[in-house]
Amino acid sequence: MANEKKFRIEADLLGELQVPADALYGVQTQRGINNYHISRKTMSDYPDFIIANAYVKLAAAQTNHSLGVINDEISSAISEACREIIDGKWHENFPIDMIQGGAGTSVNMNVNEVIANRALEILGHEKGEYQYCSPNDHVNCGQSTNDAYPTSIRLALIRMNIHLVGALTGLISAFRYKAEEYNDTIKMGRTQLQDAVPMTIGQEFNAYANNLEEEILNLERNVKLLHEINMGGTAIGTGLNAVPGFAKLCAANLSKLTGENFVSASDLVEATPDTGAYVSYSSALKRLAIKLSKICNDLRLMASGPRCGLNEINLPPKAPGSSIMPGKVNPVIPEVTNQVCFKVIGNDTTVSFAAEAGQLELNVMEPIITASLFESLTWLKNAIETLTEECVLGITVNKERCYEMVKNSIGIVTALNPIIGYKASSKVAKEAHATGRSVYDIVIEQGLMSKEELDKALDPKEMLHSHKFSLK
Amino acid sequence: MANEKKFRIEADLLGELQVPADALYGVQTQRGINNYHISRKTMSDYPDFIIANAYVKLAAAQTNHSLGVINDEISSAISEACREIIDGKWHENFPIDMIQGGAGTSVNMNVNEVIANRALEILGHEKGEYQYCSPNDHVNCGQSTNDAYPTSIRLALIRMNIHLVGALTGLISAFRYKAEEYNDTIKMGRTQLQDAVPMTIGQEFNAYANNLEEEILNLERNVKLLHEINMGGTAIGTGLNAVPGFAKLCAANLSKLTGENFVSASDLVEATPDTGAYVSYSSALKRLAIKLSKICNDLRLMASGPRCGLNEINLPPKAPGSSIMPGKVNPVIPEVTNQVCFKVIGNDTTVSFAAEAGQLELNVMEPIITASLFESLTWLKNAIETLTEECVLGITVNKERCYEMVKNSIGIVTALNPIIGYKASSKVAKEAHATGRSVYDIVIEQGLMSKEELDKALDPKEMLHSHKFSLK
Amino acid sequence: MANEKKFRIEADLLGELQVPADALYGVQTQRGINNYHISRKTMSDYPDFIIANAYVKLAAAQTNHSLGVINDEISSAISEACREIIDGKWHENFPIDMIQGGAGTSVNMNVNEVIANRALEILGHEKGEYQYCSPNDHVNCGQSTNDAYPTSIRLALIRMNIHLVGALTGLISAFRYKAEEYNDTIKMGRTQLQDAVPMTIGQEFNAYANNLEEEILNLERNVKLLHEINMGGTAIGTGLNAVPGFAKLCAANLSKLTGENFVSASDLVEATPDTGAYVSYSSALKRLAIKLSKICNDLRLMASGPRCGLNEINLPPKAPGSSIMPGKVNPVIPEVTNQVCFKVIGNDTTVSFAAEAGQLELNVMEPIITASLFESLTWLKNAIETLTEECVLGITVNKERCYEMVKNSIGIVTALNPIIGYKASSKVAKEAHATGRSVYDIVIEQGLMSKEELDKALDPKEMLHSHKFSLK
Amino acid sequence: MANEKKFRIEADLLGELQVPADALYGVQTQRGINNYHISRKTMSDYPDFIIANAYVKLAAAQTNHSLGVINDEISSAISEACREIIDGKWHENFPIDMIQGGAGTSVNMNVNEVIANRALEILGHEKGEYQYCSPNDHVNCGQSTNDAYPTSIRLALIRMNIHLVGALTGLISAFRYKAEEYNDTIKMGRTQLQDAVPMTIGQEFNAYANNLEEEILNLERNVKLLHEINMGGTAIGTGLNAVPGFAKLCAANLSKLTGENFVSASDLVEATPDTGAYVSYSSALKRLAIKLSKICNDLRLMASGPRCGLNEINLPPKAPGSSIMPGKVNPVIPEVTNQVCFKVIGNDTTVSFAAEAGQLELNVMEPIITASLFESLTWLKNAIETLTEECVLGITVNKERCYEMVKNSIGIVTALNPIIGYKASSKVAKEAHATGRSVYDIVIEQGLMSKEELDKALDPKEMLHSHKFSLK
Repeated sequence: MANEKKFRIEADLLGELQVPADALYGVQTQRGINNYHISRKTMSDYPDFIIANAYVKLAAAQTNHSLGVINDEISSAISEACREIIDGKWHENFPIDMIQGGAGTSVNMNVNEVIANRALEILGHEKGEYQYCSPNDHVNCGQSTNDAYPTSIRLALIRMNIHLVGALTGLISAFRYKAEEYNDTIKMGRTQLQDAVPMTIGQEFNAYANNLEEEILNLERNVKLLHEINMGGTAIGTGLNAVPGFAKLCAANLSKLTGENFVSASDLVEATPDTGAYVSYSSALKRLAIKLSKICNDLRLMASGPRCGLNEINLPPKAPGSSIMPGKVNPVIPEVTNQVCFKVIGNDTTVSFAAEAGQLELNVMEPIITASLFESLTWLKNAIETLTEECVLGITVNKERCYEMVKNSIGIVTALNPIIGYKASSKVAKEAHATGRSVYDIVIEQGLMSKEELDKALDPKEMLHSHKFSLK
Repeated sequence: MANEKKFRIEADLLGELQVPADALYGVQTQRGINNYHISRKTMSDYPDFIIANAYVKLAAAQTNHSLGVINDEISSAISEACREIIDGKWHENFPIDMIQGGAGTSVNMNVNEVIANRALEILGHEKGEYQYCSPNDHVNCGQSTNDAYPTSIRLALIRMNIHLVGALTGLISAFRYKAEEYNDTIKMGRTQLQDAVPMTIGQEFNAYANNLEEEILNLERNVKLLHEINMGGTAIGTGLNAVPGFAKLCAANLSKLTGENFVSASDLVEATPDTGAYVSYSSALKRLAIKLSKICNDLRLMASGPRCGLNEINLPPKAPGSSIMPGKVNPVIPEVTNQVCFKVIGNDTTVSFAAEAGQLELNVMEPIITASLFESLTWLKNAIETLTEECVLGITVNKERCYEMVKNSIGIVTALNPIIGYKASSKVAKEAHATGRSVYDIVIEQGLMSKEELDKALDPKEMLHSHKFSLK
Repeated sequence: MANEKKFRIEADLLGELQVPADALYGVQTQRGINNYHISRKTMSDYPDFIIANAYVKLAAAQTNHSLGVINDEISSAISEACREIIDGKWHENFPIDMIQGGAGTSVNMNVNEVIANRALEILGHEKGEYQYCSPNDHVNCGQSTNDAYPTSIRLALIRMNIHLVGALTGLISAFRYKAEEYNDTIKMGRTQLQDAVPMTIGQEFNAYANNLEEEILNLERNVKLLHEINMGGTAIGTGLNAVPGFAKLCAANLSKLTGENFVSASDLVEATPDTGAYVSYSSALKRLAIKLSKICNDLRLMASGPRCGLNEINLPPKAPGSSIMPGKVNPVIPEVTNQVCFKVIGNDTTVSFAAEAGQLELNVMEPIITASLFESLTWLKNAIETLTEECVLGITVNKERCYEMVKNSIGIVTALNPIIGYKASSKVAKEAHATGRSVYDIVIEQGLMSKEELDKALDPKEMLHSHKFSLK
Repeated sequence: MANEKKFRIEADLLGELQVPADALYGVQTQRGINNYHISRKTMSDYPDFIIANAYVKLAAAQTNHSLGVINDEISSAISEACREIIDGKWHENFPIDMIQGGAGTSVNMNVNEVIANRALEILGHEKGEYQYCSPNDHVNCGQSTNDAYPTSIRLALIRMNIHLVGALTGLISAFRYKAEEYNDTIKMGRTQLQDAVPMTIGQEFNAYANNLEEEILNLERNVKLLHEINMGGTAIGTGLNAVPGFAKLCAANLSKLTGENFVSASDLVEATPDTGAYVSYSSALKRLAIKLSKICNDLRLMASGPRCGLNEINLPPKAPGSSIMPGKVNPVIPEVTNQVCFKVIGNDTTVSFAAEAGQLELNVMEPIITASLFESLTWLKNAIETLTEECVLGITVNKERCYEMVKNSIGIVTALNPIIGYKASSKVAKEAHATGRSVYDIVIEQGLMSKEELDKALDPKEMLHSHKFSLK
């Protein structure tokens, strides 16, 4: 008795199965729940993905309706169900583990079933009365997992990329703000960790900002590739069971609904197993991770010390740094960011393996590609926001320390090249290094240049840009 | 008023902070909670890790007590608190994100604080009255994050490896069971996807079992490396603030408590930043993943069809295979296993990056190493259990199909080499391929061998093992 | 005596060194030769790289001359020396191992020295009389390794990419040619290695062609990033010792000389340590490798057999396939291509590590990035040319075998969905699978459709594209 | 005419082909030469590999002879030919590109052909008169590429590993030598790049030595796995065409010949496609690379400066460091070592891909595994020798600078924990940091400890090891 109330019975090719009575999903979702217990991350953890699927189904329903395949009533119920999902109403109905076999069939059927059951309710039927609105015949009409699933992944990635770019924009602003604040602060430039020639903190931080600005462009360049979709290809791209015109119209409908400029792939057989756009987008995430990690390495290097390191900058303290060393404060925020970057780089290896494993008309490894990209996107966004708020915006600079190092350096001898030549400059540098004396004193002592000339040439500010000269 | 009841105030180097009144953790844990919002996976998701930390703290307390550093009362309260954690009582008090900066200081302080506060309660004090039992001075006595944290990671990995080996043992048994069932079933062996020479299903599945058996050995070989610990090294391995004798005794105590054979590293300065054992263990997980993925590829290949593929074996159907193609059933369980393997391989890349990033006296990237290894371990275990239960145990073989392929093959000509020579055999094979005829008929027709000789030589069963011969 | 003729003595900061008397290179090149013995691959193995360096030095000399830094005589001698190198005259003078420290200083000084010495000869001086034309003061004027070296790498990559795209274009044509040849040959499409729905060989091979066509676009999209250069930035991007206007004019000059559209980076401090363009280009090579490997996997799968595999296509035999199995012929060309792809993917990991290792104002790991990219480019080009000539152009198709498999398949039931619904179709499929009978017979027997209707619906040719229908 | 003298004609399954008249190799080698133009690295570049193959063939010939398969005359000629190859006589006869399809068949046939032809000469026949001694029937007797090739790879790796361990032993000695030299030199220990507590240069360099010592153990642990061989398995491990007893006896013979302890795999079907031992050995090379790279990073960090960096140690100058910055000297040897390490790590990714790509009874990707491992081994050996000779042995330490930094540090406050507690110590540290004053002065001023007590507690030498204390 009680049991009958808690469950309903549904059936598919493999037989009957109990489904929770109030679940909008059906038998095939239940199989997915039963089959996959890997990561404990589900679709529900990625609302953008649920919403993306609903948009795709909505666009398909509109297309089928326009082309006369589905009647007004069913089409309208399906559309309403989709809109409710887009509005966030039924997110708890997507409980299947992100890591699954079947190339996304479980995801696609979960979406089909929730929409069908909700449409049935809207139409005044009971859940499970699929003869009135079937997950396969109506909701999935003119579609296959092999086109609907990758299209949804793409839309989800496009949406998540917007959040990531937002976070990145914040970080760039933070670096620009700091660059402005310390625009004139002279510090030593270093190449190969050896003293090179002077620069400013402003130049350093602006370079980070510009470096990351390129990543926004790079993300957007690669996100563009995700706008090519294969709706209408159905099982293997030949379009079997989609009506003529479906592909183009569905892309148009999806574009209108989302404001994104989707285009139908020119060869749907090619597009169906193709994972090129994911590989590219994963590479873009990796490139961002590589750059971000390098910047964090720099921050940690410049903040090394306080007394036995470079000690050029101070990162805002976020936690006592040690359970044993009192007063120690560590660069925990750059450190956590580095680690996120390493995970993103590792995920790119995963994506490479999965992409290479496609066979013939399909790549069945799309779920792990999806899960890896979603993880990378989320972690990067979280880390970047943390880095901005908890670290970069609070950086201060030890101006005097920075200036003293430049002043005492040998590297400033470089500025004498155009005047006394590389060879003579080398000799000065060599003597300075051997004796511990200053470049200035040696040049004066050896009468290589006049004091006036030298004062001008060795002024660090003068070394921040080009000067006119001509060789003898 | 209400607020005073919900929170208590604690202070550290950086100042005061509110901590939930009933939390066993303290201010530094709270900072960790506030600082890190990356993966949403916490220590609480890995009970083995919590328990491992408690064991380490318990061993340290026993050691400090034996060596006269901590008195009976405090030592006994700390020990009791540790045992409660080992028994699973306070797992919800470990809420910090696994992905964190500070080289594990947040984890170590979380453990120190929970133990200190629980010990305070046991001693009849209020939480936060650290003057009676301090997280730093007492619980962390003679320790640093830099020894306690990696030791806990190691113990956690050792514990989790046992679960993994258990799952793997089950899979091996399943393959052996199937090998037994189809011991005599002859099938074609294939090299480079080309027909080679005959073998049996028993040999095939036994080879999988033996192949995975080696992985148990390999895991255990590498887990052994995790038994070298650096307790007593404190901050950088010099042992500052640990009393003489701490290192060895603590290793002995931890061994006694856990039944694992821990040894104190011979050079604690070397051991402190060293991540070699993690790298090796990650490689072992990767090797398992590589093999498992290859086996799953084979299963999918042998199960390809049903009518346009090899169709040698049938995997138990787990879900309707397609939202559009009726009756299609896919090898979803091997597919999900492949994907898990790709993630494990990607995680190994992450571990490599993190391990390479160690600097001077510490590797600050241990948290991502830990999180990656924990993920790989958990996913592999889950996938292997699924593969065993939901796939391998239910495999059936199409015996006739297998036999027919062998019978009609050209590859069996190989058995004629010792009798008619490689060159003559090649000619037979060439003609068989060109004409579509059988090797048997051609040899008879050309009078290369007598019928009796040939019947014996081409009996597939005879090709499953060595025979005596001598070259003319 | 004899010795004096064989060697000349040169000196630098570190002291004197013997240099072969007739070598155009000088002391710093000699140090590079002495220091690096790693890969035994030298600049001389990559003529495009030598030529690229000469173009960069030529553009710099022209720029310095225009801006009044170097006089007519020296500038003209340097230019002539550069043009000789571009014409291939002195390639044997670049003997340093590609794998080197110093961030390319050895390469840059090798180039500077060869040009200086050749210019000295042109000017009527002896090699080594650097007071008349110095490698540092004149040839390297307004430059540093940190701008000249990466600019040369970029130009070399741009040149080598043209060769790669040429090879790829050939492979694409080969697939199109084969697609045309077997345009109407019906075969089974497979998803997840399971029989799906029909398609043609033409569609399959055209999809490969289209898939690779995208790789040309992707390579070109990423090669574009290599056109941003940092000439004029000198040591760390501040432009110290380059005259005002150098950066832009040098980019313009280099563009004119090479026909490539180079632009000066807007922030030279940012551009100097930046390896983003290499990372992106490496990712593009990796994406190509991933796709190429997948295609080769497909070819090997379709050619599996001859009697116990899919046996849809035949690859041209290139070698006896076995030392023991007579008559065996293996898909050796796709196999070697797969392996090249794996190396390219591995090289991308190398590039990621090297790119992440940049510090502050420079990335000192550029030599391994360069060597890895050069290797990937060369191997891919070689493999693609081999695949085209030795494999794809000679493929033949077993048409009858392909057709028979489609005819007997269950997958064709998919076409009945729009007529009898997914559920009824599933039942037909299930029975076909259980009984081994044909879909056709079962539908007729159960009276689900008329013979006429069915003949049309199950005609494989009809399944190659969309049809109009509407759901009841 | 002339042409007839230059070439001889040989034939195989695919037809006739010209072979250079004086070549010891034959038609199948010639096909390999014609087919593969990828890397331009050949077997001849790896003498250890040629020798290993000859040993394997010699062991097989001895085995076949003992078991009565091959007669005295032929066996003795084959053995003599093998011994000549082992002695380095015919290395130029192995010209096939290392990167090849066919799973090593070209290598195996090259070896078979050279031995057969040389044996023919020894027997008084002409090259190519294979009726008297056939590459397939006699030299390859009881073997397949699938057992002889991997066994040869293993022996080659074992031999090359010995060279690598030799190089590593040298580096370890160098670090120990330097540790001895600066045994008492106090320097600051750093964790997370932040000042921690004192240590000595001796401890630092000894830790490197110990860290690398573990790598020797790890290499040897993993090289042991390479001693399991599959001789006697022939094509797929079933032993077809090898006589009973071949497997065990051949392993014994090979052991006797090489002094290595080879064992026959217990399941030859399992062993044939198995690449586990390569994966493990590649992981061991990667682990060494990771550690070596970390050590080089440390050396570069400690040598940073000279005036704006840590400046603790000086690396021997190897080359002027800049084409523009006079007097700059860079850490070029650690830099080149880092880059080699990145390549080794990338090669491990390649090996992972190749190992995962095994299918059914064989892994056809062994050639790229082999080439990658050989490259990693060679490069590591070369880099380690360079690092030892050109860098580590010449390191000097700036003792005063090191001591001054410790003296002025805040980190030494850690030693006060056991006396005044973590909380009080934290306050001292905080004030020191805020005011720039010394820990010593603040403790005295605040009367926290007596001068005598403090002098002892803050003596850096006292902080290098454990002390007895007990908590109040």
